[in-house]
Amino acid sequence: MAAGPLNRAHVEVLDAADPLAGFREHFVIDDPQRIYLDGNSLGRLPVATRDKLSALVSEWGTRLVGGWEEWIDAPTRVGDLLAKGVLGAENGEVIVSDSTTVNLFKLTSAILDGREGALLTDAGNFPTDRYVLEGLAAGRGRELRLFEPADTLHGPSPEDVAQAVAHADVALAVISHVAYSSGALADLKGIEAAAGSTPIVWDLSHSAGAVAADLSAAGARYAVGCTYKHLNAGPGAPAFLYVREDAQSALRSPIWGWFAQREQFAMERSYDPEPGIRRFLAGTPPILGLIAVQEGVKLTAEAGLPAIRAKSESLTELIVTYHDEHLAALGFELGSPRDPGRRGAHVSLRHPLAWPICRALIDRADVTPDFRGPDRVRLGVAPLYTTHVEVFDALERLRGLVELGEHELVDAAPSRVT
Amino acid sequence: MAAGPLNRAHVEVLDAADPLAGFREHFVIDDPQRIYLDGNSLGRLPVATRDKLSALVSEWGTRLVGGWEEWIDAPTRVGDLLAKGVLGAENGEVIVSDSTTVNLFKLTSAILDGREGALLTDAGNFPTDRYVLEGLAAGRGRELRLFEPADTLHGPSPEDVAQAVAHADVALAVISHVAYSSGALADLKGIEAAAGSTPIVWDLSHSAGAVAADLSAAGARYAVGCTYKHLNAGPGAPAFLYVREDAQSALRSPIWGWFAQREQFAMERSYDPEPGIRRFLAGTPPILGLIAVQEGVKLTAEAGLPAIRAKSESLTELIVTYHDEHLAALGFELGSPRDPGRRGAHVSLRHPLAWPICRALIDRADVTPDFRGPDRVRLGVAPLYTTHVEVFDALERLRGLVELGEHELVDAAPSRVT
Repeated sequence: MAAGPLNRAHVEVLDAADPLAGFREHFVIDDPQRIYLDGNSLGRLPVATRDKLSALVSEWGTRLVGGWEEWIDAPTRVGDLLAKGVLGAENGEVIVSDSTTVNLFKLTSAILDGREGALLTDAGNFPTDRYVLEGLAAGRGRELRLFEPADTLHGPSPEDVAQAVAHADVALAVISHVAYSSGALADLKGIEAAAGSTPIVWDLSHSAGAVAADLSAAGARYAVGCTYKHLNAGPGAPAFLYVREDAQSALRSPIWGWFAQREQFAMERSYDPEPGIRRFLAGTPPILGLIAVQEGVKLTAEAGLPAIRAKSESLTELIVTYHDEHLAALGFELGSPRDPGRRGAHVSLRHPLAWPICRALIDRADVTPDFRGPDRVRLGVAPLYTTHVEVFDALERLRGLVELGEHELVDAAPSRVT
Repeated sequence: MAAGPLNRAHVEVLDAADPLAGFREHFVIDDPQRIYLDGNSLGRLPVATRDKLSALVSEWGTRLVGGWEEWIDAPTRVGDLLAKGVLGAENGEVIVSDSTTVNLFKLTSAILDGREGALLTDAGNFPTDRYVLEGLAAGRGRELRLFEPADTLHGPSPEDVAQAVAHADVALAVISHVAYSSGALADLKGIEAAAGSTPIVWDLSHSAGAVAADLSAAGARYAVGCTYKHLNAGPGAPAFLYVREDAQSALRSPIWGWFAQREQFAMERSYDPEPGIRRFLAGTPPILGLIAVQEGVKLTAEAGLPAIRAKSESLTELIVTYHDEHLAALGFELGSPRDPGRRGAHVSLRHPLAWPICRALIDRADVTPDFRGPDRVRLGVAPLYTTHVEVFDALERLRGLVELGEHELVDAAPSRVT
């Protein structure tokens, strides 16, 4: 970042030097006036996805049931793309199908079959992660322990996890790689080492496509995550599930479905699951959603995680610097780690009037942030299509709006915002 | 059916009088020479679905996360359409999301929470139904009982079910409304009455959109089913789950996910599921698939189940008559009920060389049937787009092919056919 107060000329220089600048044109951007800082909730539509979806629908119309000859392998084919191009995993270690919630249920339930003890997660983890564990704990008569990280802003650390699993009776822990609320980036490799033999199931929803998880190198054994955020696969696109190859055969999904069956079309037999990752499939996979995941993953893999990560650090750093220069004086407080190496691709700005500020940004300033209760304006950057100038302009609009008190004109009752 | 041997002129008369004839043009039919008799595996593409999917993808591109204001209710909105237009159920009793396998798991698992005893299904039920129950039985230390109907051709009868549940220790039974293999149509209302207080979970996959289930009138409490067969919603489209209103609050899905949560976006709370059918939602619903379900359901509802059913009886009767006149002499055996009131919208013709016959039909005769092991040529009719002439021509081609021995030129090793 240039010395002295931020100005638009500084950030134009950053955009001019951006090696990913060309990727923006791979996305549909109908309304360039609107600044979209919620790609970490729902990513933009890639042009290729629009075209491939249209082609796939035609293929359904033309090939009809014959299309299944290719579609049937889509969960593993797209899983392999994701494994190699994004997650740092190997072929045969990832499937794409079902939702993150269902995948988390299948995976944690399977692990619990082989292990006694409590379920563990941090109290600030994403609701569906906590709910799935709450349900499993209730169903199996286990304890669910919600631990508070010593440093809540930075989230679970290796020390927190080492301490939490020191009790011999922990069956597994579920931890988000990037925290949905603060954007804190967990030390995946350090936590794996600290956990020892205790299984950690990683939720990569807020990191996949934004931060390299490097699952193989980090020694991670289990993960799930969604594809509609930084992987740009569209609303409700299917999620992924990763199990390291050597851990697969010991696990059995609790949902025994025909897409996991060895010799699926020899229908007269008892359940006998595939030896590999396909054993975590259940019912018929969502083919439309899978093609969208494929295209989103291809774009991310083409850009490469190192370049994506470098740009997201630069973009979030712009938010932090601007916060310090202008927003702190307006009652904002940084709700994300200050060290760019400790956060993912979004920044939370806390403010007591976060909800009306978000509404005013959306309705009066052509900026789309995300509100996260009770007091967070969450700003997500998407290195494939967000520019530094967009972030700067959004922050200028935010500042101007709060200085003028425009948010005080907004109905203060929160409604649904996803 | 006209007196005397069938001929093409007879069936042309039937098509000329068909009140549903106009619906064919609502489907994409690129290759009219190919006769598609596998709509009970994957239905054809409706023109409106192609257009609505394209519009929805544009909506994602334009509205971005703001689209969720409408999308969020899609599982119940489409569920209501399906309930009223197809299933004979009420608003608030059906959701559309996840796969049939996952929905069956959620529903049967929830019922088992409140009931001791064994799980029951017929030995001929669809694989994924059997597998899900096998998995639940294993996971919960319950017994899975596979019963053989007294009359295997006609499938489970009220008497079979009365006898099977007479043991006090049956927790639930899963029964298909239309059997995937024989096409036998179960007496849903009679079986419900025979089962008394024992919960029956209906799998409507092969009947939804083809046969009226009339769930409310029949006293059915629980059902699941798919939408990619007679509801024409495309490969891997999301499935449905039905729970009668008075049975909902007592059940709790085993998969506790954030889309089932009351006040979903008040994220700091413990799990507290919605009181109604939404409690069976789990993760983020597949929006692309849901719009396809919506359009498929609309077409079916517009045509109306009575007209659809009348035409499917006429179409399957044509197959049975032709079988008797020409195919029995070639080694075929009717593998479906002879009474049209006892079968759904497909007919199985058994033949020791069913596999090469199917391949020859596909590759050499421009007819798409379905092979179901070990010995069935399954012919599905879709009243919204299948004509009597198509069925007649397909049967003529089948007969000609077998008479000439063309199937003997085909590689006899079965490969994957969905």
